[in-house]
Amino acid sequence: MLKLKDIISIRDLEKKDIKLILKVARKMESIARGEKTSNVLEGKVLGMMFYEPSTRTRLSFEAAMKRLGGKVIGFSEVRTSSTMKGENLADTARTVAQYSDAIVIRHELEGSARYVADLVEVPVINAGDGAGQHPTQTLLDLYTIKRTFGKINGLHVAILGDLKYGRTVHSLAHALAMFNVKMSFVSPPELKMPEDIIEDLKNFEVEINETSNLNEVIDDIDVLYVTRIQKERFPDPQEYSRIKGAYNIDAKTLEGKDLIVMHPLPRVDEISYEVDNLPCAKYFKQAFYGVPVRMAILKLLIK
Amino acid sequence: MLKLKDIISIRDLEKKDIKLILKVARKMESIARGEKTSNVLEGKVLGMMFYEPSTRTRLSFEAAMKRLGGKVIGFSEVRTSSTMKGENLADTARTVAQYSDAIVIRHELEGSARYVADLVEVPVINAGDGAGQHPTQTLLDLYTIKRTFGKINGLHVAILGDLKYGRTVHSLAHALAMFNVKMSFVSPPELKMPEDIIEDLKNFEVEINETSNLNEVIDDIDVLYVTRIQKERFPDPQEYSRIKGAYNIDAKTLEGKDLIVMHPLPRVDEISYEVDNLPCAKYFKQAFYGVPVRMAILKLLIK
Amino acid sequence: MLKLKDIISIRDLEKKDIKLILKVARKMESIARGEKTSNVLEGKVLGMMFYEPSTRTRLSFEAAMKRLGGKVIGFSEVRTSSTMKGENLADTARTVAQYSDAIVIRHELEGSARYVADLVEVPVINAGDGAGQHPTQTLLDLYTIKRTFGKINGLHVAILGDLKYGRTVHSLAHALAMFNVKMSFVSPPELKMPEDIIEDLKNFEVEINETSNLNEVIDDIDVLYVTRIQKERFPDPQEYSRIKGAYNIDAKTLEGKDLIVMHPLPRVDEISYEVDNLPCAKYFKQAFYGVPVRMAILKLLIK
Repeated sequence: MLKLKDIISIRDLEKKDIKLILKVARKMESIARGEKTSNVLEGKVLGMMFYEPSTRTRLSFEAAMKRLGGKVIGFSEVRTSSTMKGENLADTARTVAQYSDAIVIRHELEGSARYVADLVEVPVINAGDGAGQHPTQTLLDLYTIKRTFGKINGLHVAILGDLKYGRTVHSLAHALAMFNVKMSFVSPPELKMPEDIIEDLKNFEVEINETSNLNEVIDDIDVLYVTRIQKERFPDPQEYSRIKGAYNIDAKTLEGKDLIVMHPLPRVDEISYEVDNLPCAKYFKQAFYGVPVRMAILKLLIK
Repeated sequence: MLKLKDIISIRDLEKKDIKLILKVARKMESIARGEKTSNVLEGKVLGMMFYEPSTRTRLSFEAAMKRLGGKVIGFSEVRTSSTMKGENLADTARTVAQYSDAIVIRHELEGSARYVADLVEVPVINAGDGAGQHPTQTLLDLYTIKRTFGKINGLHVAILGDLKYGRTVHSLAHALAMFNVKMSFVSPPELKMPEDIIEDLKNFEVEINETSNLNEVIDDIDVLYVTRIQKERFPDPQEYSRIKGAYNIDAKTLEGKDLIVMHPLPRVDEISYEVDNLPCAKYFKQAFYGVPVRMAILKLLIK
Repeated sequence: MLKLKDIISIRDLEKKDIKLILKVARKMESIARGEKTSNVLEGKVLGMMFYEPSTRTRLSFEAAMKRLGGKVIGFSEVRTSSTMKGENLADTARTVAQYSDAIVIRHELEGSARYVADLVEVPVINAGDGAGQHPTQTLLDLYTIKRTFGKINGLHVAILGDLKYGRTVHSLAHALAMFNVKMSFVSPPELKMPEDIIEDLKNFEVEINETSNLNEVIDDIDVLYVTRIQKERFPDPQEYSRIKGAYNIDAKTLEGKDLIVMHPLPRVDEISYEVDNLPCAKYFKQAFYGVPVRMAILKLLIK
């Protein structure tokens, strides 16, 4: 049993909560693939409040709820909601809560999911609050690793890209630290992991390595977790162009390496398309794993 | 049994129709809360034609249909429909009717729901036609009163706000008159209930009281039904500012009073947020009651 | 059994495939009308990728899937998908395929459906790719004829309107040729059926007649299939105005004729509204037949 009412931040979860979710998710896979049917959430309604566009998170939550026999209502953009008539987030959320057995919310404002969770009685799941948290992404990342290697403990995970502003990466690092993973943070110096995050991780007595050069670690790592480096982060476009190439993963980068490549998607050009068909490319599988993980969360939260 | 094919205006319903809907709604509540499952509308499809944004009405109809085991198709804005390609309302409605067992329509044009109901064979429910009718709102308003007091007859209901242009308020007054309710209409003189509505109500030999001062009646009323006063109604912004305060409900207004506060939502600032947590605040509960009431209507209309 | 994984172009289907789909569709009708329930696709999920607005195709696919007990996820416009964040069609499709047991796609780009079908493992159904194919429209057109006359063989079908640019008309002609139908192509000279299409049809040894004057054939035809003549095709607006009238179907055109009128919809003004209530008007029935035909396709494709 999960003791939490809501899933707002990965930091709210204890290690045993995470293990429970991953364990339940494993049992959901055949239902997630449509091979088995389930009606465990029959008669239940999930309220989706998506104030920002989303393909993966929204559709995988919908698929998860529906594969379990549940129903979905909600909106996928501001324009079709009463927010257009000046209604505030609190009133909209309290209203949706009247119609639903749980709420999934994506909102541009950091802290919005926690704010809503405190307002309503039904469980609230944070599906991304601006630059804030996106805990179900972290959980499916963990599940992908667990599912591929049979374990998380003891692996060496490199996280590459924008480690300064990419806060979902901070959540992932925090969660990995709970599993005593060796971590390498690979980024341009301008986009290094912030000091306070590094300090937080040190509480777990985890081995951490920082570098700007992927080649230094690529032969040792089990997982290469790639994220995007956004052009907007660089005041000087030339500086961006210079750096970009070094953090683009192509078939040559991966030649002869024994690792898997993950990415939260959407990608732009940080992983070349030629990589897609290599056995090490796990990012679409990773997207699929979002379904059983979200099924597990829905089943555990909805009474 | 309802003898009506459609629900277009509250004026089409006889008192016994209303009583039947409220009675069936009462039985729907545990299903509406997700405590019991139902498949009474299994295999049935509800077509939603929403030409204007809506949270409450759209989502509660969807929840109602889905909680009963039915399915929903449709659109929630003009842009994703063939109206974009120049198709007129009649053709779109006749098409949606081919795919559905009932239609719910919200359209900016007064009279549009009746027009569609006359065109198609399936039942049509008016979910708001511009400044026209919104009968399911009136029904859930009645249900909220009935559910709270165990009766409607003999209560004293004050309706406050814009009584001139708010036509859903006219429908509510009409319906309340059928139940021999004492009514107080509280509004700025500029926004008084129109004479023809008052005349209509007098047919029911109902006691009516008009005032611009809430204090005159607040100690006697059982229900305070608040609606918004729209700034746009006042040519002079200063006049609006002067009036606004007198029709804003806060905790102090309600101190020591024995009544419930209702509101169709969305509100802007006509009820202070501090009121939300008072036991007398029923407007979110009222939103919930939209689900069992709409379930009852769907069940009674869909063959 | 259909041996195809996907339905991309009517040209991929053999005559026996088409006959199978029409036969299965016939059995689906009572479920499509909500008279019988079915759970043959229980637990299955259909992914809808609609990059362009659509009422008929989108809603009838949704109704079809839902009437069969299946579920639907997806998006009905670009704006609510990750395409907004720069994701390309391939990545979005591969993602949706992770959540779905089949994909229905409408995209403005010709060839897009085939491209997606080659990328993903799940069945892909083309719901219109720009000026390209729209095979389920052709199948429901055939079904409407079969259902009305009990046969397709030996009938005389006139196709009227823009035969030059209207490529769904090309698909329809191709499919009709497989059933040894006599065809009359009625269009302004500027919008004649292209030579290569005529050549293709001659492979079937079908009788073909081209004219710009409907009166020449109207007494002999069984089916009058009307399509729109788009103003934009004419550089000279006066030329358009002159021609338009001759291709507008009204009650007088049809007086005393023994035929049915079909139209893929939406229409603008090429069929007068007075025709709608004549027994020969079959275009709304034709829209309905889209449901059982799409049910048949979904049932045959989804494993």
